[in-house]
Amino acid sequence: MKVYFDNSATTAPCPEVVQAVSEAMTVNWGNPSSLHYSGNSANALLESSRKAVADRLGCDPGEVYFTSGGTESNNTALFGAAYQMRRQGSRIVTTSIEHPSVYEAARRLSAEGFDVIMLKPDAYGNISKEALFEAITPDTVLVSMMFVNNELGTILPVQSIRTAVKRAKSPALIHCDAVQAFGKLPFTPASLGADLISVSSHKIHGPKGSGALYIRSKVKIKPLHYGGEQEKQLRPGTEAMPAIAGFGAAAKALPDTKQELERVTKLRDYLVKCLEDTGIAVINSPADALPYITGISVPGIKSEPLLNYLSERGICISSGSACSKGKKSRVLTEIGLAPDRLESPVRISFSRYNTKEEVDYFIQTLISAKRDIMPVKTEKK
Amino acid sequence: MKVYFDNSATTAPCPEVVQAVSEAMTVNWGNPSSLHYSGNSANALLESSRKAVADRLGCDPGEVYFTSGGTESNNTALFGAAYQMRRQGSRIVTTSIEHPSVYEAARRLSAEGFDVIMLKPDAYGNISKEALFEAITPDTVLVSMMFVNNELGTILPVQSIRTAVKRAKSPALIHCDAVQAFGKLPFTPASLGADLISVSSHKIHGPKGSGALYIRSKVKIKPLHYGGEQEKQLRPGTEAMPAIAGFGAAAKALPDTKQELERVTKLRDYLVKCLEDTGIAVINSPADALPYITGISVPGIKSEPLLNYLSERGICISSGSACSKGKKSRVLTEIGLAPDRLESPVRISFSRYNTKEEVDYFIQTLISAKRDIMPVKTEKK
Repeated sequence: MKVYFDNSATTAPCPEVVQAVSEAMTVNWGNPSSLHYSGNSANALLESSRKAVADRLGCDPGEVYFTSGGTESNNTALFGAAYQMRRQGSRIVTTSIEHPSVYEAARRLSAEGFDVIMLKPDAYGNISKEALFEAITPDTVLVSMMFVNNELGTILPVQSIRTAVKRAKSPALIHCDAVQAFGKLPFTPASLGADLISVSSHKIHGPKGSGALYIRSKVKIKPLHYGGEQEKQLRPGTEAMPAIAGFGAAAKALPDTKQELERVTKLRDYLVKCLEDTGIAVINSPADALPYITGISVPGIKSEPLLNYLSERGICISSGSACSKGKKSRVLTEIGLAPDRLESPVRISFSRYNTKEEVDYFIQTLISAKRDIMPVKTEKK
Repeated sequence: MKVYFDNSATTAPCPEVVQAVSEAMTVNWGNPSSLHYSGNSANALLESSRKAVADRLGCDPGEVYFTSGGTESNNTALFGAAYQMRRQGSRIVTTSIEHPSVYEAARRLSAEGFDVIMLKPDAYGNISKEALFEAITPDTVLVSMMFVNNELGTILPVQSIRTAVKRAKSPALIHCDAVQAFGKLPFTPASLGADLISVSSHKIHGPKGSGALYIRSKVKIKPLHYGGEQEKQLRPGTEAMPAIAGFGAAAKALPDTKQELERVTKLRDYLVKCLEDTGIAVINSPADALPYITGISVPGIKSEPLLNYLSERGICISSGSACSKGKKSRVLTEIGLAPDRLESPVRISFSRYNTKEEVDYFIQTLISAKRDIMPVKTEKK
């Protein structure tokens, strides 16, 4: 049996996506900037893909800028907003549990002289509204907070940022990394109160190599790339058409968010019940996490041998973010996880294709893993 | 009849590419950073694609960094090298006929305080070696020159840069935008004497959305993006696997460069002979241009109506770079083209799939265009 429980790392492209990408290489492969029929039809495909993403995001197509993925969207938002706002202030508020593409960009901005505040999470990866209100001052020019944490599924209080910014009479732009939330949790730019939102194609069964940055109309940020006229000069370079067409198809193919959320919530509840009944693992995620992501620890077994054991038996899961391959998790360190849980983290991340039978097989295999794998040697002598 | 003569804008993905991209979405769609079997096989695909590009470039796979395309490769080279070398000097030497992704990056660096020298071309888009030697001084930290001009096909004296840098005892890094040369003109990083080389997938029948930057081993530059560990942290973000697999397949499918160059030279010579025999157009490209690109002017007809006329009859050509849609060409302005030729430029760019019959159809249609389209009104009264 093959079980793919690593959907927060990447997802399998759905059939509609495979077909759209293929057509964008065979039928409609022109350069959208070309002024002949081949270019015109490629441009029509580009704009219909943009509309599909905009429709799903709940915004105007003119507010969607295609990028090469979530990392570039996050980088463009952070550097672009910070440089744009530099004259109005130098304070940036973010959290210590952001994705590396926000976290490292923020650290870079700090090295360049920005005053970067990283809010600390509680034991479940949550950020308190009080801390948020306290951190946002009149000279704050950018607030960046992820909507859903990629290792724990924790849903962060992004909606409170707008109120905090208003109360502080701050000119701050608000950025939300919604890569793990897009298509999974209902939201719109208006409901989030965000000026900038990052989303990625390959987390919603689209191809890797495409993402988008929502930029609220009238908001201006500096580009990260310089060159041609594409994407209103915010993101020059020939558009990554096969991947963009696939991203559009993936956005169109998304099922009803609320309905799917209910189904996945049941699946997650079943998973948690099985884990608790067997007593084999402890849950690191909060009870109200996005059910697509469940962080657990299997005390007594280190992650790497466990992942290998499961992989050999057809199960794909990860220890945390795929982007920080092999390293100890910053997110789990930040929430203060005890050492035995910190060295045995496992992230189970669902997609709309996962089933109860797969959870059963995972639980059985986890039980046999605990029996077969040598326990972690304690460091006491 | 359908004739695609706009291969410098983009090319049709070849069958090997379509299949590789499709497989990277169906059979092998994992995240290369994941530590399970799905990630491992995606990583193997990533590395075999890297090897295919490296083999074609004539370098070590460890020197190839995947990017989202030519624009990002050029931006990464310019900003990355300039910021890396800042302490050693602030002089950058480039030309005034570079692709917008080099030109605009250089202008941005100039605005940031770098001393940017843009060498002027002669009437055929060539840069004199004397000017190059004169411009490169001991405090020059970066020299960036394209190998083949994208509007004229002019082959620039990139090979002389290394000598000029040595003579000046300059620490300069040498960057070459080889996007229009890769797979068409025989070269290796060693033969070019370059530290950094940009190439793009979609100019060699690969998918749009992938490119590479060659970085000579031991050369260090600053990244443009910040985030995860991918591409040795020089280019973080989940790898654009379908496009990268396609790029690898495109590199593998490239025919013998020299043999193909001979065939395309004959085709270009035939085109030029036809144009000269009919007296319908003047050639803007030099006689020793890369034969894949021929810049002409059709005095008496403005480019836009001509392009439309040809497009309606199945012929795709462009007035110049697709990246500067509609604007008057900077390159042709820089070479000092006369006004009647400056408003009527046409670029014919071949691929390995073009034929003599297509040239015949193009010439016939050009003749009928000259008959059917209203002439440009002269500005004299």
